[in-house]
Amino acid sequence: MTISPSDAVIGFIGTGVMGRPMAGHLLAAGYKLHVFNRTKAKAQPLIDSGATWHDSPASLAPACDIIITIVGFPDDVEQVYLAPAGLVANAKAGAILIDMTTSRPDTAQKIYSEAKSRGVSALDAPVSGGDTGARNAALSIMVGGDKDAFDKALPLFQLMGKNIVYQGPAGCGQHTKLVNQVALAGNMLGVCEALAYAKGAGLDPRTVLQSISAGAAGSWSLSNLAPRMLAGDFAPGFYVKHFLKDLRIAAEAAEKMGLDAPGLELARTLYEKLSALGFENDGTQALYRLYGR
Amino acid sequence: MTISPSDAVIGFIGTGVMGRPMAGHLLAAGYKLHVFNRTKAKAQPLIDSGATWHDSPASLAPACDIIITIVGFPDDVEQVYLAPAGLVANAKAGAILIDMTTSRPDTAQKIYSEAKSRGVSALDAPVSGGDTGARNAALSIMVGGDKDAFDKALPLFQLMGKNIVYQGPAGCGQHTKLVNQVALAGNMLGVCEALAYAKGAGLDPRTVLQSISAGAAGSWSLSNLAPRMLAGDFAPGFYVKHFLKDLRIAAEAAEKMGLDAPGLELARTLYEKLSALGFENDGTQALYRLYGR
Repeated sequence: MTISPSDAVIGFIGTGVMGRPMAGHLLAAGYKLHVFNRTKAKAQPLIDSGATWHDSPASLAPACDIIITIVGFPDDVEQVYLAPAGLVANAKAGAILIDMTTSRPDTAQKIYSEAKSRGVSALDAPVSGGDTGARNAALSIMVGGDKDAFDKALPLFQLMGKNIVYQGPAGCGQHTKLVNQVALAGNMLGVCEALAYAKGAGLDPRTVLQSISAGAAGSWSLSNLAPRMLAGDFAPGFYVKHFLKDLRIAAEAAEKMGLDAPGLELARTLYEKLSALGFENDGTQALYRLYGR
Repeated sequence: MTISPSDAVIGFIGTGVMGRPMAGHLLAAGYKLHVFNRTKAKAQPLIDSGATWHDSPASLAPACDIIITIVGFPDDVEQVYLAPAGLVANAKAGAILIDMTTSRPDTAQKIYSEAKSRGVSALDAPVSGGDTGARNAALSIMVGGDKDAFDKALPLFQLMGKNIVYQGPAGCGQHTKLVNQVALAGNMLGVCEALAYAKGAGLDPRTVLQSISAGAAGSWSLSNLAPRMLAGDFAPGFYVKHFLKDLRIAAEAAEKMGLDAPGLELARTLYEKLSALGFENDGTQALYRLYGR
């Protein structure tokens, strides 16, 4: 079976800043779309464009062949999938459930097992690229689960993303996203401390960036977040509270695998501090606040 | 005065893996070149191409209008510049001395003052881009010192580099290079721990890199050094011993300016450990050895 607009009904749960444009691409491609969101108003533009509204996951599930979710936190994922009124208990046999939330690898594995015991497939497929990537259908999508379910869902992924990679069995999508966050965490330390050093040395940090951004110290964060730090622009592209959630999951997973990751641990501690200071709704670049003088 | 091959004699001290190709570009542009190096054999290709050999900085200095140095460590810089038989004591009045070694900002300031008291100009102009950048005349050159000396020397910089930025008074070139190293240090933590996490989670790290290299976690190090780490290729592009030297200077400078930089401190500690284990002549990517399992 190849998934196509004429033979597959798609469910979409979580129509926030990421989910709404992602669901919009599926609708624009001609798919019949059923939607649920905790706050209905955020789904209204999709409903206005032809999506069918449901009041609960339990109501949505039986109507759909493939169901995509992108919600906030692992607890939300557990609730949507594993509660008695959740997706796993109410999905059609043969359905494919795809969680695109950045969440816990062990939760993804649990959903996979519970789903499988009911004849339902589950993929974990977190993304990177932010709201811009979602709007431009340019996300990086990292997928774990059964390869044949991945192959079936691929046409949908291709409507939402550009860099779509199958990473292995259930949980591997989530683990891959956490690898991304671990790399980013160390880099954020470097970017913040580099700028703080530049200021402390009496340099003009913007002129310094001209010298170093294109070289061996270059990174996405140095090019994109350092200028915002210097401008005092801490508006969220990616929330501190979400990044901290990811760092906690990664730190816990690292500990379980016996990996000593002092850079990750340092970054997690600093983001805990930033959050405790009341900046959890800032963007991740607000880490620079801790180095302010 | 504009510096040109017909009216300026150039001295070059330090004709190693970086200095030799840099000096070669000046020679190829038609400049009269005088050279000195601790190991004469490394200067031989330049001598064969027409450069004039000297047995000491004291002998070279009086013959030159502009003298460029790129040596190993701050102690070498002190010796070459400030010893009685060094450049400052023996340079012609009106000469410009340009140190392109990555060295101490306070040493650069001291050289600047001593030189100025004798009517000689001094610039600190460390580079990034490695031996490839040196060979391709594509270095990033970060310059501190008097602006008019920078303007005079610019035609020479343009023969060796592409991204040439005046950063401010004496020492600012060195401080800018240290900013680069601070950013890089944090990033190296992130890259190493990300790969170690990926392995620990049972992922294929190369497949993971396909998902994350072009996104928000992307960096020069992730693209260029992570594959070498995974291949166990620790051959030096940039030596651990040189990076550690830079991190020590940066950590000391940060402390002097009252800057708490825990990421830099962590990276320095880990590179100290790596060096103590006998890997000081590896490339910086050998930090990954500490995360091996």
